[in-house]
Amino acid sequence: MTTIEVTSRRPMELIDVTAEVRRAVRASGVDTGIALLFVPHTTAAVTINENADPDVVSDLLMELNKIVPLDDDYRHAEGNSAAHLKSTLVGASQALPVEGGEPVLGRWQVIYFCEFDGPRQRSLHLQVIGQ
Amino acid sequence: MTTIEVTSRRPMELIDVTAEVRRAVRASGVDTGIALLFVPHTTAAVTINENADPDVVSDLLMELNKIVPLDDDYRHAEGNSAAHLKSTLVGASQALPVEGGEPVLGRWQVIYFCEFDGPRQRSLHLQVIGQ
Amino acid sequence: MTTIEVTSRRPMELIDVTAEVRRAVRASGVDTGIALLFVPHTTAAVTINENADPDVVSDLLMELNKIVPLDDDYRHAEGNSAAHLKSTLVGASQALPVEGGEPVLGRWQVIYFCEFDGPRQRSLHLQVIGQ
Repeated sequence: MTTIEVTSRRPMELIDVTAEVRRAVRASGVDTGIALLFVPHTTAAVTINENADPDVVSDLLMELNKIVPLDDDYRHAEGNSAAHLKSTLVGASQALPVEGGEPVLGRWQVIYFCEFDGPRQRSLHLQVIGQ
Repeated sequence: MTTIEVTSRRPMELIDVTAEVRRAVRASGVDTGIALLFVPHTTAAVTINENADPDVVSDLLMELNKIVPLDDDYRHAEGNSAAHLKSTLVGASQALPVEGGEPVLGRWQVIYFCEFDGPRQRSLHLQVIGQ
Repeated sequence: MTTIEVTSRRPMELIDVTAEVRRAVRASGVDTGIALLFVPHTTAAVTINENADPDVVSDLLMELNKIVPLDDDYRHAEGNSAAHLKSTLVGASQALPVEGGEPVLGRWQVIYFCEFDGPRQRSLHLQVIGQ
């Protein structure tokens, strides 16, 4: 298992980790298999989406905050219940195919580490299996 | 890796791809393992849900459009920001167990390719690993 | 594949199944690999989140019901369309890395079976692959 360190700088932020994931998949030596991305935090997540237009990311975060408002009569005293729900909705794990020693991604896809309660020092685990 | 071609005919649509996935899992020769479904697009997704009553699918799409409205002061010029967020909420990857050479699904479950910005020609990747 | 039996006692409930998953991963004999969690139901899901403060779980359920209201002019006669959508949003599958024969989880993470249309007798499949 490889762990990629991620430093978020804002309360909510999508951080493109595609290059780090690509490097770690190559280093695994697996030619054909599956790369599992796993976030070991409860107020963060991992997703795959577009990065060609930065407005897509700002729209995603803006709309996500409308759907799960930061304040909404939550009881959890830490005040980050919205971040916990975003983590569950977006998800702590994603997996990609690996072919020819490379992660398979569509033309417009990049991998985003999703920070929902930053800024913080975070980790993203990567487990590559196959042959 | 196998790629299943999917043709959507409407702006939003859930397309049952269970038969194609089942065929590809059998063809993989894997008896015991995991089948990874991966959507290489940023305005589509993959989910597992019911198809016994077609009202379930129409309710899913209707309610998803209430949660993520098609128009909502988005900045992304292409006008499909809602589709990008739906893709992130539903997810670009899902995985199923494989046992006895068959994908394991519950009694009421089918696999849906989710089109959120159609109609388009789409792909669904399938990577089966195990032995 | 191992199947963990889960008994829900309320209409909506998050049930901590971490101990059962941990036991099954150990029993699999896999040292390094991936553990796939798969819910074979269309009105339930699996997620990973915090259990240190029980208010997190009640906030998650409260807010999820605001986002996907139980009644909202759905057409599906069974009356559980909200549960079907929650299942799709949270997801029927999650995967975890396995290292040293143990599932890898973050400090605050536990695995929750998500009941959205209970009470019912449910199953959670676990497929562990690797070596």
